[in-house]
Amino acid sequence: MAPEPKVVLTPVAGIAVLPVGGVPEVDAGADLASLLCAAIEVSTGGLVDGDIVVVASKVVSKAEAMQVAENPEPGDEARRLAAITGFDAGEVELILMQSHTVLRSAPGVLVVETVHGFVCANAGIDRSNTGDAMALLLPVDSDASAARLRDRLARHFGVGVAVVVSDTFGRPFRYGLVNVALGVSGMAAIHDYRGQADPGGRTLKGTELAVADELASAAELVMNKLDRVPAVVIRGYGWEPSDGGSAGLLRDPAQDYFR
Amino acid sequence: MAPEPKVVLTPVAGIAVLPVGGVPEVDAGADLASLLCAAIEVSTGGLVDGDIVVVASKVVSKAEAMQVAENPEPGDEARRLAAITGFDAGEVELILMQSHTVLRSAPGVLVVETVHGFVCANAGIDRSNTGDAMALLLPVDSDASAARLRDRLARHFGVGVAVVVSDTFGRPFRYGLVNVALGVSGMAAIHDYRGQADPGGRTLKGTELAVADELASAAELVMNKLDRVPAVVIRGYGWEPSDGGSAGLLRDPAQDYFR
Repeated sequence: MAPEPKVVLTPVAGIAVLPVGGVPEVDAGADLASLLCAAIEVSTGGLVDGDIVVVASKVVSKAEAMQVAENPEPGDEARRLAAITGFDAGEVELILMQSHTVLRSAPGVLVVETVHGFVCANAGIDRSNTGDAMALLLPVDSDASAARLRDRLARHFGVGVAVVVSDTFGRPFRYGLVNVALGVSGMAAIHDYRGQADPGGRTLKGTELAVADELASAAELVMNKLDRVPAVVIRGYGWEPSDGGSAGLLRDPAQDYFR
Repeated sequence: MAPEPKVVLTPVAGIAVLPVGGVPEVDAGADLASLLCAAIEVSTGGLVDGDIVVVASKVVSKAEAMQVAENPEPGDEARRLAAITGFDAGEVELILMQSHTVLRSAPGVLVVETVHGFVCANAGIDRSNTGDAMALLLPVDSDASAARLRDRLARHFGVGVAVVVSDTFGRPFRYGLVNVALGVSGMAAIHDYRGQADPGGRTLKGTELAVADELASAAELVMNKLDRVPAVVIRGYGWEPSDGGSAGLLRDPAQDYFR
């Protein structure tokens, strides 16, 4: 078992966002935890108690052999959506295999709810920086991936850590991608201010912050897509321990007015 | 004029996210720039070239006298939406006065496009931590607010800085609020990787990152809502100078498939 984190929830004195460079190309079946431990040693001198390690889903997928060598044979629905989107029908078939529901299709646009429950373009399938593979699927269970990495990192460095597996998603209303948390281990994904009083004594309402997503976004700022920085150490953030994983980050479709 | 920033876009060695505490309660008409300069001196020892200052819209609104003493008299549309949402009809009238379009209404939910172009709940009107006022509206022009603060901070500290005015918004699909950029001055809000080649020589596509939103999210992690940390200094992020403000962050409604 990983050591329990000794987290102190005092006012924050500042956070450091530290890139973990020097990770070699990750092949299918690679021991990603070992690669990260070595790279963290070199980049940051090791982890300290309370660190959060944000890991790009791309390298998790590569290590977990989520590479796809070629597109599947398209069925009727894939051909229909290919005609709408202008995408290759085989690419669409691969997206549909990773999807639970298609939410929107339009020229150049295919937004789905994935089999994992994420709403994103193209089921999160990655077609750049995939090595020899044609495409790379998202990890099967990013919470489980985060938990496995956390266990290994905590043992190796002998400290309590949290792990976030992240990917960049688009969003309605606002332009540009932002990095969000797909998998979370060890920490509460949502920080809940509800019920606390403001300095004027008024109860704060509606202030549940998606801190795991904000941590992923902070990490992206040093994840240079071209220079192999697939992981980031965030130091100094006083997280709340939790076994809840990422589930709290997915909005109940029944309470989502924009599906 | 503010000094031109001397920004070096070399690989990032790490980012520091530094809370600016010690800001007193901000009254209508307060010189927020002076308050921030003094608090930044104490909290971080001053700004250095290339720093980004993220400022919560709440204190910008307070200084810019966006307090509202009481709700307006509701009209028919406000009464109709109050019946749907369960909100007070006067509160709804105030939301409508700050709105361009109502996108969704349901029990407990009123999502609008604001007069500024933001899509958010309740037109971003704040009813907690508002001092003596009943409510607080968003700044009239957050880009202009950011530019004024930037000019003052750059003069005071004699360095090139960027400023982001931020607020916490909900979003479809994912639960929990995240801090986003309402106003931007000095830096490009979007970082565009398109056209660059990955290590395998393949051109990267679709990789425009909303870095101003990610910076706002990083800042929120140290903006304790209860302890008066209304500003954050982010040090070590190599931004691209730009006069474009926040406009690039707002998705063209014609290309938004979830309105």
